[in-house]
Amino acid sequence: MTGWLGNRVITQIGILVHDIEQVSGAYAEFFGVDKPPIAETDSPDMAKTRYRGQETAARAKLAFFDMGPLQLELIQPDSEPSTWREYLDRHGEGPHHIAFVIEGMEEKVMLLEGRGFPLQQRGEYEGGRYAYMDTLKDLKVIIELLENDKR
Amino acid sequence: MTGWLGNRVITQIGILVHDIEQVSGAYAEFFGVDKPPIAETDSPDMAKTRYRGQETAARAKLAFFDMGPLQLELIQPDSEPSTWREYLDRHGEGPHHIAFVIEGMEEKVMLLEGRGFPLQQRGEYEGGRYAYMDTLKDLKVIIELLENDKR
Repeated sequence: MTGWLGNRVITQIGILVHDIEQVSGAYAEFFGVDKPPIAETDSPDMAKTRYRGQETAARAKLAFFDMGPLQLELIQPDSEPSTWREYLDRHGEGPHHIAFVIEGMEEKVMLLEGRGFPLQQRGEYEGGRYAYMDTLKDLKVIIELLENDKR
Repeated sequence: MTGWLGNRVITQIGILVHDIEQVSGAYAEFFGVDKPPIAETDSPDMAKTRYRGQETAARAKLAFFDMGPLQLELIQPDSEPSTWREYLDRHGEGPHHIAFVIEGMEEKVMLLEGRGFPLQQRGEYEGGRYAYMDTLKDLKVIIELLENDKR
């Protein structure tokens, strides 16, 4: 059995921060790795970000650390409406989501919405797309779906 | 470079919950696995739990899910003083720590304390011991060290 995602391998943990330069530096020192480049999510026309069913101009700065078999992602959101901004304002800095690679984004989103887990935010990135599902009430953490295009 | 822990492979994510039966059931259904048995931390005389330098009678109910290369741990603490109880009361339900397997617990704890990361809680379990280090200010999540005895 593989459950509703067809996969239960956690591929990423996402952590919200106020100052990505500072926290990224702390991680690099703690784990003895180079400070990774700070990326930024694509511009709204590229990312087509939708938050709670509405278009949003929200973007975020991102930094990735390889922590063995999974990635730790630091996220510093801007002030526009997003799951990142909302969660940071409500809960403060800390873990926001765990991510799973899936296939068939539309079906998975529909299946989960049918089970009572609303789509919270979705968007695109180069080579794929993501969806944050509101699993907070039941699972106590947000689940992110990642679908990467076949090359 | 492997940093201060000598390891950067995340082996576990710990999530605090109020009702482990309910949340455990939700995870089992979501990920299509059997509901795992609910374990409990050892009694205080066995676990020798110390929280902020003091002995504590705190115990927690635990449930473990294998999520690919790492374990997801659900934790329902009792009302006695502990990092679990304190974090749950302050932050609500959700992720509490990421854990790393280390060797040489005493040296690692001393090294981290010297770097400004205080020991928050420690205790023993069958076959090993753990320490929660207060890395919250810098890393935005608590780091747990796990040392397992060689068999």
